[in-house]
Formats: sequence, structure tokens, C-alpha cells
Amino acid sequence: MVVILENSATKEQIENVIKHLEDYGFQIHKSTGVQRTVIGAIGVQPGFDTRKVKILDGVADVYRVTAPFKQASRSFKEDKTVIKVKDVEIGGDEIVLIAGPCSIESEEQMFKLAEVVSKSGSKILRGGAFKPRTSPYSFQGMGEEGLVIMRDAAEKNNLVTITEVMQIGEIDVIEKYIDIFQVGARNMQNFALLKELGKTQKPVMLKRGLAATIEEWLMSAEYILANGNPNVMLCERGIRTFETYTRNTFDLSAIPIVQKISHLPVIADPSHATGYRDQVPPMARAAVAAGADGLMIEIHHDPENALSDGPQALLPEVYLELINELKLIAKAIHREI
Amino acid sequence: MVVILENSATKEQIENVIKHLEDYGFQIHKSTGVQRTVIGAIGVQPGFDTRKVKILDGVADVYRVTAPFKQASRSFKEDKTVIKVKDVEIGGDEIVLIAGPCSIESEEQMFKLAEVVSKSGSKILRGGAFKPRTSPYSFQGMGEEGLVIMRDAAEKNNLVTITEVMQIGEIDVIEKYIDIFQVGARNMQNFALLKELGKTQKPVMLKRGLAATIEEWLMSAEYILANGNPNVMLCERGIRTFETYTRNTFDLSAIPIVQKISHLPVIADPSHATGYRDQVPPMARAAVAAGADGLMIEIHHDPENALSDGPQALLPEVYLELINELKLIAKAIHREI
Amino acid sequence: MVVILENSATKEQIENVIKHLEDYGFQIHKSTGVQRTVIGAIGVQPGFDTRKVKILDGVADVYRVTAPFKQASRSFKEDKTVIKVKDVEIGGDEIVLIAGPCSIESEEQMFKLAEVVSKSGSKILRGGAFKPRTSPYSFQGMGEEGLVIMRDAAEKNNLVTITEVMQIGEIDVIEKYIDIFQVGARNMQNFALLKELGKTQKPVMLKRGLAATIEEWLMSAEYILANGNPNVMLCERGIRTFETYTRNTFDLSAIPIVQKISHLPVIADPSHATGYRDQVPPMARAAVAAGADGLMIEIHHDPENALSDGPQALLPEVYLELINELKLIAKAIHREI
Amino acid sequence: MVVILENSATKEQIENVIKHLEDYGFQIHKSTGVQRTVIGAIGVQPGFDTRKVKILDGVADVYRVTAPFKQASRSFKEDKTVIKVKDVEIGGDEIVLIAGPCSIESEEQMFKLAEVVSKSGSKILRGGAFKPRTSPYSFQGMGEEGLVIMRDAAEKNNLVTITEVMQIGEIDVIEKYIDIFQVGARNMQNFALLKELGKTQKPVMLKRGLAATIEEWLMSAEYILANGNPNVMLCERGIRTFETYTRNTFDLSAIPIVQKISHLPVIADPSHATGYRDQVPPMARAAVAAGADGLMIEIHHDPENALSDGPQALLPEVYLELINELKLIAKAIHREI
Repeated sequence: MVVILENSATKEQIENVIKHLEDYGFQIHKSTGVQRTVIGAIGVQPGFDTRKVKILDGVADVYRVTAPFKQASRSFKEDKTVIKVKDVEIGGDEIVLIAGPCSIESEEQMFKLAEVVSKSGSKILRGGAFKPRTSPYSFQGMGEEGLVIMRDAAEKNNLVTITEVMQIGEIDVIEKYIDIFQVGARNMQNFALLKELGKTQKPVMLKRGLAATIEEWLMSAEYILANGNPNVMLCERGIRTFETYTRNTFDLSAIPIVQKISHLPVIADPSHATGYRDQVPPMARAAVAAGADGLMIEIHHDPENALSDGPQALLPEVYLELINELKLIAKAIHREI
Repeated sequence: MVVILENSATKEQIENVIKHLEDYGFQIHKSTGVQRTVIGAIGVQPGFDTRKVKILDGVADVYRVTAPFKQASRSFKEDKTVIKVKDVEIGGDEIVLIAGPCSIESEEQMFKLAEVVSKSGSKILRGGAFKPRTSPYSFQGMGEEGLVIMRDAAEKNNLVTITEVMQIGEIDVIEKYIDIFQVGARNMQNFALLKELGKTQKPVMLKRGLAATIEEWLMSAEYILANGNPNVMLCERGIRTFETYTRNTFDLSAIPIVQKISHLPVIADPSHATGYRDQVPPMARAAVAAGADGLMIEIHHDPENALSDGPQALLPEVYLELINELKLIAKAIHREI
Repeated sequence: MVVILENSATKEQIENVIKHLEDYGFQIHKSTGVQRTVIGAIGVQPGFDTRKVKILDGVADVYRVTAPFKQASRSFKEDKTVIKVKDVEIGGDEIVLIAGPCSIESEEQMFKLAEVVSKSGSKILRGGAFKPRTSPYSFQGMGEEGLVIMRDAAEKNNLVTITEVMQIGEIDVIEKYIDIFQVGARNMQNFALLKELGKTQKPVMLKRGLAATIEEWLMSAEYILANGNPNVMLCERGIRTFETYTRNTFDLSAIPIVQKISHLPVIADPSHATGYRDQVPPMARAAVAAGADGLMIEIHHDPENALSDGPQALLPEVYLELINELKLIAKAIHREI
Repeated sequence: MVVILENSATKEQIENVIKHLEDYGFQIHKSTGVQRTVIGAIGVQPGFDTRKVKILDGVADVYRVTAPFKQASRSFKEDKTVIKVKDVEIGGDEIVLIAGPCSIESEEQMFKLAEVVSKSGSKILRGGAFKPRTSPYSFQGMGEEGLVIMRDAAEKNNLVTITEVMQIGEIDVIEKYIDIFQVGARNMQNFALLKELGKTQKPVMLKRGLAATIEEWLMSAEYILANGNPNVMLCERGIRTFETYTRNTFDLSAIPIVQKISHLPVIADPSHATGYRDQVPPMARAAVAAGADGLMIEIHHDPENALSDGPQALLPEVYLELINELKLIAKAIHREI
């Protein structure tokens, strides 16, 4: 932590600041310039609230020197994390494709779509059984029955599966049937849930909250990591801004930044980021070009009658066509799909 | 729902749109102008996803006519909701003051502060036992032990109590000791939790999410109301914007707007909105002047050693002084404290 | 400037950083901790781009120690600036009221409204002659003819005047008739205009840009101050956020913050901040309670037929009533209106 | 315009609304459903302020049916605009590359960089002579002397030129030497400047304001178009959001949306969007993948000593390497560079 004193700070104020810092357990380096005194406070305290120092008399500003996340940072682990689920590797050279419907709706639907996913060369099947809906009057998901369907559809097509977990009470049942937990944007800071997922053995995909900074996102990942589960991947799905023509603003610049400061793989979700199917292909292409380690895309064979998010689902044939473009773009940046 | 067709929409496209609307269960009013056709789709379907219509060929735009929330709206219940907890009324002419520490830390601390709260004429005691901390390395709260302390301190001083609930598993223990549930900003769209709170009998204070629109905030209130609990109060605590000098941007204009479109009481929390104690008094005054039905303010007799959020806590004497100013402002707008 | 080196920074990298800092003219204080090296770079260079250092190999982060604005800061001038225009003082104990129509529309209108302003005890008359309209098809203002009308209406009622200047070419004609220049939100970073206004002798009210941080706002004030005009007042008029129920988000917490870091007076404009007349009174009250040095409020005797912004104009009788409430609130915080 | 009446609107209120709409010159279609009345108000009035209707008693909501921009819209001109400057076409199948330094600094610098631009196959040379700097203490540009240098460097290398215009007084001198005017983000709503540029004959590149919605951006384009200049191209350069790890948030999803609703070409500027050179290549690739009609990229042979924005400038060799990747991505979406 670096503490900048006011120009006008008195000797007593400076001594008081130093005393506080020492009481908080820091080692002190004082540096007195012509205009101001700057104090370096050495000692890692990840949860320390810097406002405690900022409000002391004579203090102009306070900066953390170390990032507040630890296990999620590149300085903790220099090599990129590669998560292995069955024969799929997430975070390696190959860009991973996750596809499937928003909600699991029926056996027929899932088997049909799992076949599309498999045929397209994508390796992970998505589908929601417990749905976080803004309205209490909307379809809330099929629950365990849906999970069974998804597991069967995946097994038949040799696919890995991912589904959203919304509360601690669902962890056990999901773990029974599914390979990867997904934490939705609205639960990114549901710390109780994150802690429990840290105690499970299966990988977790953590979506970025609508208004979460990159730092907060990594702090939430830290909750899972610090509780014992090293298999965390991140998922950028659009942030909330003033713009209303788009559903969210897809923050693609977060991808290279997260990859620089963290070793965790980053997936991009152009379906939720844009909300409309005609914007999914250009944004999927852009995400690959920006360096995403994977894409999650919603598809549906009959989007008009989908029980949720039909307007953002691609038809299977559009999805297959998109993959051809993505392959060329991956090649341009020396990766594969 | 009003559907605006493109200038260039063909007869077939218009008929197709009408067919879809009818299939979705709406009654149709078609109105053909010189330039465009406008279709009114009548029939209330609170959870309907308007994007389903927006993506049809020939459609330029779609607008919902009814608000997506129902029981939370003024058109559902014209009279303002007044929530009674013991002898305290929230939402009436009197502006309610809620005060106490961020975290419950010890018996000594809570008894000392409960006495201040009581002496100041404030009626509700706050204190956190289960803490949602951004960092997994920060103090996570005293749990049930803290709740027992708070109940005892409140009883001795004849105060009503409020504490935050972070997960479904905590509902029972909190209900045993405490009068009002608080849902934090990070859990505003933790729908599983909201549903369960809808089934309890005690009032719920629902904080606005950092990036939640007023509409989403009321939709989350709807989850509680629709599950059977009519005693919901809202709490504005600052939203996230581009400005970094302030911790959050305190959205005081939300207060008169929510009061216009909803019957639920609105509390303001200047402590979390600003994050620094010297900004709390001006923003507390502004919130009362803007028409808030109550204030929640953090106080601490020894903020430097508080286990959480000390920098935003007022000293007891500053709190007492502030109340004197608030009383005059309340009088200016024909209310009381 | 404080430069934090990476944990892993090599000796060569650190020396290279020091060499660069010295070449840029800074004096160096190096402080080596257990984990990292921190370099203090002493020497004030207000326009220095800290990114130049941030991109050097081995650098983890860089923080400015001094604010980028100088003459606008409290450390430059400790006493609050009080601007005198004729017999009006802006920035003193008395809260100044500025009122009038959005646009100057006719002699009859301005004389009628100037009388209202005068009768209400307000001291400054506003009115737009050159209008910045989002649409090229909207009314663009009466120009010089309007300025003549406003001057006459003000003189008859002993009022000070303010009007918006949109371009350098309008400065001379406005200076001829009007007492205070207003720079609109959209021109807050029209640096060419700011420079020229720095060379005039009349006070300037600088509105905050829709997406301007407090720091950028003060930097724009610095442009005027640095060019020789010390009479700058700031005006908060709402910022752009994700919320759409309100026209803008009125950032009242900016008021105490600006007053802390700068000596310049701060006016609040609840009319533009909210955009609707029924929200103006609560937000006007809140602004006074938050400590604003003045208010600017739009009034119109016939808002339905106003040529611009009628929906946000108060009727004269509502304005007079509001002033009564404001007087009580001012008294509560030991100020007067 | 579609006007939704309140459930509770009385007959008198409805009639009053209709009377107002007719007075404002609209034709009326009334449609009475079970729950509410909806009024269609027909008649195009681009500058109409819908708030005038929204504040009438009994009105629940008002929606514009036509976009507020006209000449900028696809319904006004279905074919994409292709702007020809000398032998360069902007908006056609070929993606146009604009490159050069942030500021023109010297003859040596410009001739060196113009050669790089030319050799790379890029067709347009950029360089600032009049600089909009946040700080009044920063380098403000070489002025006319710089323009002469840029013209000479461009002529020698057969390049088209672009430079920023900050005020009306600079238009004539820029027009004398340079091919394309650039309007910076901070001047996007400097309507006086836009009007004058509408009267010139040279193309204008209009950057999106930091907090400008897509609609406002197109409205600003409309100012230029409506004043007689059809050669407008847009430039996305990042918007302001809550995220601070990135300098701005590069809103790539704006690209396909603008191309859908407008016929104007869209350029992307990854240099200003990100602010740091290591983020420029991934975002440049993403912009091409998202469908941008061109890129503007800052390059410098000695970024450490650049007089402005050095940290975001690519070295010539990095730029050349990037172009190779961009060519492959362009091919993947059936375009060329």
C-alpha cells in the first residue's frame, strides 16, 4: 500500500498515520520529497480496507500495491490453467465451443440439439434446468427431470455438459448428472454459493456480473479457488452501460486484459451479450479474434417456440455456417477450433 | 404491447406478425397510417418476452404497454403500503431511522450502540451477522451468536431489529431472533432467496442492485410479493457509474420515481452510497429532502477498530447532531422524524 | 508520481525505469521492500501522461500524487471563491437562485418571467438565445434579438443575466448584453471555447458533461482559470448512467466532493437533471440539503407552448411555493436563501 | 408516435390528449382495448419533444415510431454509402486502413511514418495538428505548419489525409491541405461546428462521444447531412463505463447495429478505445471480425518520445505484422484489406 500525504500534513499527522499503519501490521518506508511525504506500507493483507487509512487526517490518497486477488493472479501461477473435463481441454490452444438451448424443454429437443452440437464438432452441451428469470411469472425450468434428459443426450453424443446452479440446495443434484457448474451473472457475488462450489470437485464457469469490474470478477473467482477448487473458468457475457440499442455491451477488451493478469481461461457468450440472433455471428467472430479461449452459443431448432431466450438462439444451420468462419479466424491467430 | 411495423413491411409480413400475436394469446387492434401500420396487442402476459415479436420480419419496434411488475405497482394498490413492525410504522408520515454498526462484533459493542440508537429516538437497530464480503479473506460475521446479542441489545432498548440474509439456509435462524430481513444489493436477483422470503411472515427490506434499473428492482420485489409476503420495503444505496471519486452514485431521483410508480416504502442508505463518513451527513439530508420514507445509517463508537466498513460509520455524537438537522428538513416538507 | 514495480522486475528493468523518469525530469526516491520496489518520482508536471511509465517493462502500476488540476484545487487557494456580479455574490453563505425559461421566445414572455424571478427574490435571470439542440430540425434560438430582450427584461427588474455560449463567434455579442457565460454540458470539453472564455472578464458557469468525471470537470475549469479568468462556477446537471426511468442521474454526491477538493462554487440544475417538472421540486430540495451554492431552475408561464424543454419547466406559482420549502431547508444547514 | 393512456384515464383526459396531439399537427388513430386506450399519432415531426405528451394527465407512456434521424437512416437511403476520396473508397467491400501518429511532430517524423503507411498498403494518413488535450498544460499541436508537413508527406507517398478539426475557425485552413475532416469524441455534439462542416465539400469522420448513444451519434451525423454534406463516416472509439482496467469500453456491438439502421460507413479506432499498445492488436482483429468498414490505428517509430499518446502507438513492425492477421480475418468474412 502506498500512502500519499497532503502537502499541508503536519508532523503529528504523519506520525499518527505511521502509527496506525504499524498497528495494522505493516512495515513502513517513509520518503519525504520537496512537496510531500509518501509512505510505503509493506506487508500483504488481501482483505485490508484501504479506506481505513484514507480517512486519517493528513492523508491525500491511498493505493493498493498488490491486487486484492491472489490465487487468481498470474503472479501466483504463471502458466495458463488448462481445465480437463473427460477428453476436453479448456484453456489450451484449441478454442472450445459450448452450444445448446437456453432451457432444457423436452427429451426430443435435447436429443435433436445434442446431435447438432456433436456433428458441428463442438464438445460441450449447455442447457438450463434451474432458470433465473427476471419475472416470477416466467418459465422457471424443468429441474432434475431436465438434468436427466441432458445427461442422456450428452452420453449418446459423447459430449461434456454444463448447467447453471442458482443455489446451494441444487449443488448435489447437479453434480450427480452434469460435468461443469455455471454460475450466472446475477449470482456472481452470491458468496455463500461460491464458497460451496469451492468445495466441490467439478469445474465452475463463473459469468461476469452485469456491473462487475474485472477486479471484482476475479475476487469472486478467488472465493472458489480459496475454498479448494482450482478449476475455474471465466465467462464474459456483456456489461450494463448507458447504451440501450444493444441489450448489453459486450466487453471484448476484457478478454486480453484478464488473460494478462490471470491464468484462468476466458469464455465469451455472444448470445447473452447481444440478445438478438442476428448480432450473434459478428460478435462470436470478434470474440475469437480477440483471443477468447472458448465460446458459448445458444442454438435452437425452433426458436419461435423456445420456452426462454428464443430470440437470441441460432438455428442449427446458421451455427454450422458460423463455425466455418470461426475456424478461419482461429487460424489467423494461430489457434484451432 | 404495441408493435410498430417497418415502412416497407409487406402485407404477408404484417399478416404473419398478427398470426404470431394471436398464437401467443393476444387480441389484435390494427391501425394503418399513411406511413406505417401499428398493431396493438391486448392481453396481459407479465412474463412475455417482447423480443419474440421484435425479431419477426417487418417489425420495426415493440413496446410493452403494461409494466412488467404487477403487485408492486400503484395501479395494483393505490394506497401507499405502511408496514407495521411492533409499534413502528414504515411508509407513514413519520420518517423512520435505522441505525447501528455494519457488523455485530461483541456484546459490549451492541449494547453501547443500541443505547445510542434508542436515545437518539431512532426505532430500528441494524447489525450484520452474516456478511457478504468482496474478499474471501475478510471478516465474515459472527453468525447466530451475533443474532442473539443483537436481540438482547434491542430488547433492552425497546428497538426493532434488521439484519442481512445471504442464503436460504439462514432464513430460519434469522427469523427466530430478528424482526426484518434485509436482502443486500449483491443478492437483489438471487431469485431462489427472494422466493423463500416471500413465504416468510416478516418484512423484507430489498436493497437495489449496483446496476439494477428501477424496473428490475421492482421485479425483484414482485418475486417476494407474488410468493405471499406483502411487507416489502425498498432501499436505495447507490448505483455504479463511471465516476470513481465517489464509491457509488447515490441515485436520489429514484426516490420520487419509485414512490410514483409503486406503493412500497423507500428507505435510503447514505452510508453505503458514499462509503466515507464525511459524505454521509449531506447525503442523509438530501435523501430526506427528496422524500425518503426512512434512512439507514451506520454508526460506531470506535470506527477505527470496526471489523468492517469503519470508514463510513458516524460517531454517535455526529449522528445525534445530524438528526437535529434532519428534523428541520422533515418539517420543511411536512413530515416528521 | 508513485511507480510500483512488478514482483518479478529485474535490476535492469528497475534501472531502465529510473532512467526514463530522470529523463522526464523527475527526482527519484527508491524504496525497496521485501516483495517489491516502489519508486517515488518527485516534480510537478501537470500534463504528464502516466501511461508513458506504465508501459515500461517491469512496471506494475503508476499513480499520480498530485491532482492534474492546479488553480481549481483547494491546495492552490484555500478560501472558497466568491464571485461578485453587480450586487450578487455566488459562493457565499447565501444560496443563489437562477431562474427563467429554457429559451428566450418573445419580449412578452421574458418580461413576464423576469417579473416572476424578481418577485420571488431570485437574483439571476436565465434564458437561451443560442440553443444546442440534439436535432437539427428543432428550434435553434432567437440569437442576438433574444439577448437584447433579456437584457431589457433584466434591467427593468434589477436582475443579473446568464446565457449559454456555444461557439467562439458568439462570445462578443453575448458579452455585450449579458453578465455570465454558461458553457453547456455538450461543450464541457470544447477546449478552444474554454480558452477564449478564459480571456474574457465575465464569470463563466461550466456545466458538467454527461459523462465527465469530477476530475475532468475540474480540468475543464482549469482551462478557463489558466487563461486568466478566475471567476468560474461549476454546475452539476445530471450524468448519464444505465437508468432510463430518469432522464439523467442527478449526482448530488458530487456537490460535497467538489467543495472539498476545489474552491469554486457549485450550482445544481434539477431541471435538466430530471427532465420532468414533477421531479424538479424534490431534487431542488435535495440539492440545497446537500450543500449546493445555488440552483438553476427553468420556469415558464405556459410550458405547454414553450419552444423548448416545456416539460421540465415549473409554473411560476409552483416555483414560488418551492422557494418557501427551500428557505426552511437552507436554515436547517445554517445558510440562507 | 404511440401514446399509451393510463388504465384509469378519464374520458376528458383522453380527449384532452387527442386535442393536444391534433394541435401539434398529428393525425389520430384511437384504439380502445379492454384495459387501456392506445393512440397512434401519425405525422413525421423529427424534432418533436415527446415529453410534451408524456406529462399530460392520463398518459402512461409515449413512444416515437420513427427514428429521430432521417437522412442517416437506412429507410432514407437503402444502399450503403461509399465515400470516394481520390482513389480510395470507404464503405465498399475493401476494409480501409488509416494510420499515422497521434500528433504531427516534425517533418522527419511524418515522412518516415508516411512511408510506413504507404508500404503497408494502408491508404490514409492520419496526424493531429490541432490537439484537444484534457490538460491545458499539455502539447497543443503544431497548427498550420503541421498540416503543410502532412500534405507533403502524403503527396510523396500517394496517400489520402485526415486530421481533426476542433473549431469553426480551423475549417478553412484544414480544407486547404487535408482530404478528410475528423470530429473528435469531445466535439460530437458541438452542433455549431457540425453545421459548418455540413457546408463544406470534404468528407467528415464523426467520432462517437464517450457517452453518446448510437441514436445521438446518428443525430449528430444528421446535422452534417442536413446541411448539405452527404460524405459522413462514423468512428467507434470506445465508450465510458464503470470499468477502469480498460481506458474505455470498445463497443464493437455498435458496428453491426449501426450498419443495420444506417447506410453510413463505420470505422473502428482500437488505439483510443484501449489506450495501451498491447491491447490494440486483439481489438483491431475483433473490429474487423465484427464487420468494421475500416480501422484507424496510431503508429510511431519512437513512441517513448512521442509528444502525445505514445503509449497507445504501435511500432511500424508490429503494425505490419498485424495487417497480415487482419487480411486473413477479412477473408474469413468475404472482405479484403
